[in-house]
Amino acid sequence: MPLTEDGELDAASLERLCGHLLEAGVRGLFVNGSTGELAYHTDAFRLAALRVVRGVAGGSVPVLAGAVEMTTNRVVAQARAAREAGADAVVATVPFYTPTHPDEMADHFRAVRAAVDLPLWAYDIPGNVQRKLPVEVTAHLAADGVLAGLKDSSGDLDELRTLLGLTEASGARARGFTVLTGSETMADAALALGADGVVPGLGNVDPHGYVALYEAARRGDGRGAAAHQDRLRRLFALTRVGDPARIGAYSSALGAFKEALRQRGLLTSARTPAPLRPLSDPERAEVSRLLAQAGLGPV
Amino acid sequence: MPLTEDGELDAASLERLCGHLLEAGVRGLFVNGSTGELAYHTDAFRLAALRVVRGVAGGSVPVLAGAVEMTTNRVVAQARAAREAGADAVVATVPFYTPTHPDEMADHFRAVRAAVDLPLWAYDIPGNVQRKLPVEVTAHLAADGVLAGLKDSSGDLDELRTLLGLTEASGARARGFTVLTGSETMADAALALGADGVVPGLGNVDPHGYVALYEAARRGDGRGAAAHQDRLRRLFALTRVGDPARIGAYSSALGAFKEALRQRGLLTSARTPAPLRPLSDPERAEVSRLLAQAGLGPV
Amino acid sequence: MPLTEDGELDAASLERLCGHLLEAGVRGLFVNGSTGELAYHTDAFRLAALRVVRGVAGGSVPVLAGAVEMTTNRVVAQARAAREAGADAVVATVPFYTPTHPDEMADHFRAVRAAVDLPLWAYDIPGNVQRKLPVEVTAHLAADGVLAGLKDSSGDLDELRTLLGLTEASGARARGFTVLTGSETMADAALALGADGVVPGLGNVDPHGYVALYEAARRGDGRGAAAHQDRLRRLFALTRVGDPARIGAYSSALGAFKEALRQRGLLTSARTPAPLRPLSDPERAEVSRLLAQAGLGPV
Amino acid sequence: MPLTEDGELDAASLERLCGHLLEAGVRGLFVNGSTGELAYHTDAFRLAALRVVRGVAGGSVPVLAGAVEMTTNRVVAQARAAREAGADAVVATVPFYTPTHPDEMADHFRAVRAAVDLPLWAYDIPGNVQRKLPVEVTAHLAADGVLAGLKDSSGDLDELRTLLGLTEASGARARGFTVLTGSETMADAALALGADGVVPGLGNVDPHGYVALYEAARRGDGRGAAAHQDRLRRLFALTRVGDPARIGAYSSALGAFKEALRQRGLLTSARTPAPLRPLSDPERAEVSRLLAQAGLGPV
Repeated sequence: MPLTEDGELDAASLERLCGHLLEAGVRGLFVNGSTGELAYHTDAFRLAALRVVRGVAGGSVPVLAGAVEMTTNRVVAQARAAREAGADAVVATVPFYTPTHPDEMADHFRAVRAAVDLPLWAYDIPGNVQRKLPVEVTAHLAADGVLAGLKDSSGDLDELRTLLGLTEASGARARGFTVLTGSETMADAALALGADGVVPGLGNVDPHGYVALYEAARRGDGRGAAAHQDRLRRLFALTRVGDPARIGAYSSALGAFKEALRQRGLLTSARTPAPLRPLSDPERAEVSRLLAQAGLGPV
Repeated sequence: MPLTEDGELDAASLERLCGHLLEAGVRGLFVNGSTGELAYHTDAFRLAALRVVRGVAGGSVPVLAGAVEMTTNRVVAQARAAREAGADAVVATVPFYTPTHPDEMADHFRAVRAAVDLPLWAYDIPGNVQRKLPVEVTAHLAADGVLAGLKDSSGDLDELRTLLGLTEASGARARGFTVLTGSETMADAALALGADGVVPGLGNVDPHGYVALYEAARRGDGRGAAAHQDRLRRLFALTRVGDPARIGAYSSALGAFKEALRQRGLLTSARTPAPLRPLSDPERAEVSRLLAQAGLGPV
Repeated sequence: MPLTEDGELDAASLERLCGHLLEAGVRGLFVNGSTGELAYHTDAFRLAALRVVRGVAGGSVPVLAGAVEMTTNRVVAQARAAREAGADAVVATVPFYTPTHPDEMADHFRAVRAAVDLPLWAYDIPGNVQRKLPVEVTAHLAADGVLAGLKDSSGDLDELRTLLGLTEASGARARGFTVLTGSETMADAALALGADGVVPGLGNVDPHGYVALYEAARRGDGRGAAAHQDRLRRLFALTRVGDPARIGAYSSALGAFKEALRQRGLLTSARTPAPLRPLSDPERAEVSRLLAQAGLGPV
Repeated sequence: MPLTEDGELDAASLERLCGHLLEAGVRGLFVNGSTGELAYHTDAFRLAALRVVRGVAGGSVPVLAGAVEMTTNRVVAQARAAREAGADAVVATVPFYTPTHPDEMADHFRAVRAAVDLPLWAYDIPGNVQRKLPVEVTAHLAADGVLAGLKDSSGDLDELRTLLGLTEASGARARGFTVLTGSETMADAALALGADGVVPGLGNVDPHGYVALYEAARRGDGRGAAAHQDRLRRLFALTRVGDPARIGAYSSALGAFKEALRQRGLLTSARTPAPLRPLSDPERAEVSRLLAQAGLGPV
């Protein structure tokens, strides 16, 4: 999320970034997702960001808003606020902080959907919430119409394939259940398996690249999609610019995305929220090198 | 957290429970901890609960309030609200949802402490937040006076011992840095290693048992403390009353604690918050059996 | 590995099974792999099995022999014995039981290759040996000619893709470095990414299915390969015939493969080695159902 | 295991080391355990080492021999050979490389015990074999007389306490079932909980220290035992002499133990087996510093 040097929401940069995404041809905007720093900002900040994105979108594409919180009651509160602020759909994970039985995961999504009159997407991101949303649970919720879609950030293509098969068989896919992959590096493979689209964090840095990948895949040009993917895989080295001791922490990956956006002229500042530390000079130089290698200059 | 059958805060039961704890001789109250269902309730609910506890305590013992949120800005918001509501200290974990470098963990606690003028405790609970607070980080923060204490719910007695040694050597312990264990089942061992006290979730069910354990340990009666501990270990089977498929989910453990409190007459209802499912009849019967075995009847 | 009811090597069944594989058109045989029960048999048994397989192959296809042991010296001993027994190549994992630094993993493969004059394959199977063979290590060893190939049973297609890119760039692929996937369920995806072939445990049950999948992929028919794969994915439910408490143990998966081979007339007995327990009657019935659904009868 | 510069068994050093242990007052010798490099040596080497140890012991103390292998048949082969070579008991882990159901773990130990007429010890070391031996399984096997004892290298004192309770209640403890801890750093705590003895890898470097700790614990002097333990905890920093990138690999811990033994004059060479890399000069200097700090000079 674009920040001023003081750590406040930089609405101008956020507008510029969203405009750039729309210009590239994205079909939707996802705000308050993981790369959107959902974990780092207060409720008020999250809503302010949503309102800015909503304003830029202006109804031209749907705005999906993360309502990511630990359990049902807290998700409902987030989802209601997002609805007030104009979200077209909300995106929620399974409960986290404490463990939850799969049946209770299903209850969780049912309760959120019942409480808030907006399409509900499941966000499967086990690296962040410790537990995978079992495909059987997703498939049941899709068949019952509780879920409008899934953002799959699990990295598990095998399970994704199972889910696509189950939701095809149940008719949920035919009734509109949508599956998006959050993978930056295997998006073409997910599309080849039948996923409907891509929601990659790296897509903020190079939306044209992912749109081109998506369109190649749509027209059945697997080789072309793979070529775009391979280029974007090299760019994904942005997440590894940190010295090894920092890799694995979030600051280097998020910091490199923001530094890349700053160098491209989309963000005024690359500042990351507390407690993430800024990139070092060598790390910033590596960001420059990777952008140049990818042919990405100022927009 | 005591709930009415409608899922609202049951203030009367909460007052009854806190009164029971104080009567048993506890030296402090911890509200909005993990067993206190911090993950399950909205901000407004958390504050309402804190105010009730504050009212019962009436200054007789300190009230520590969990300010458990994903990252710094959100923790600061919780901590400020807790201060307004009368907390005597706040308790925060390391950041969760996204990974954080140890240096950034230290920055996190420093920033929270700087933002909120209340004693700050670290809450080390890696099972819930995925990452252990490294003892070196805790020791530095203790030496610098950033942390007033630690609630160790890691279960790692070896690391606890290292921390006690480091904070002894730095003088932090002499200056008041306090270490409490959250272990229900190895509290006597933690006290023998030098921990200052015990904050066990099961202590809600049998506060007299833990106070007796603590007092035996204080007077150097390791054998006596162990006898109390062994009895409480048997009672801890409450966390395993669920059928095996449910064990590991949180509903059976939390549900059994609440059912035990209901059977003891302290809670009006054993209701658990969404999405946790209630205990079955056989599970409730097993709670009764364990209470009887522990000699715990209505209060 | 086919066993008599007494738990001895059933050479006749092993010959029948290998003959069936060759008849289906496989291009090589891998003996003493994980599905080949390498963990369960003595050194003498392993060699006896290798000799039987070698006899059936008769030089018509290469025989790769697992030399899977905890560390270098033990692998060398296995590899030498396999060479004596007629193996055309040996396959080794990274060290296990104790942790090993990536540089030492490289030393490990170099030492094995130096000690035994046979082509050496790396076997990447982190689920069994706790550690992934880093792609950078594999790529270096491929570039240096230490490794002739890789059997990738990691399930990580993203890393596989990175490896294929690195070995392409270094010229190792052009010089013959071969990459096979061990995946039963994503073999078509691995082939689409550039893998050279498939070594699936389930291929024992339905070699014709995997040969057809492979040939479709080779001729660029991704849709056809996917259709074969989807059918084989359904058959892979063999690994989940056990009641849930048994799933995750090895006995149900291996037992179901052997029961399927018995029902197809290839094995005389479905006996599994100690300490694996046999399938129950309902589990065997489920095997029958899955075979019928896949159109697999007696051969 | 002491090695010559050529990597062969250094029998003279092994005799010297064992003599040193006996002189310090140990009550038994454990050969081919994890610190004894069981993973790194061939069967022939393992047996040669056992024979040397057997010779030094000369019946004065029992010699326990590791029969650590992946599954039942392989363990039986190791155990039979160990029996031939004069072992007084054998020590086996749960199966590894492939997962095993708890009931099959029990079958495993039963089968080994039935096949080899020697007392059988379970070796619970989940960090190396991926799975913990459940206490319920151990308790049943103890009650049935299948197991003579347990070496607990799990580091889980809570479960150890449960096991001690179960085996006390069943009468197994009264009939001689023995529990030893493998912990270097919490040995006093394990003894306080009721463990019968200590089998620490670091005990090779400072056997007098552990014997003194044990004797203090035996006579009920918890404070004295803790003082010995705290000194040995500082010495245990030997396992962390490596640069951070190496820590977690086994080479630095094992290498430091061997270098310490070399500096104390017990080993002729600190050589480690393939593929472990030797310590660097700074790492060796750190070993010297830690020995000096612990007051350990040449013997």
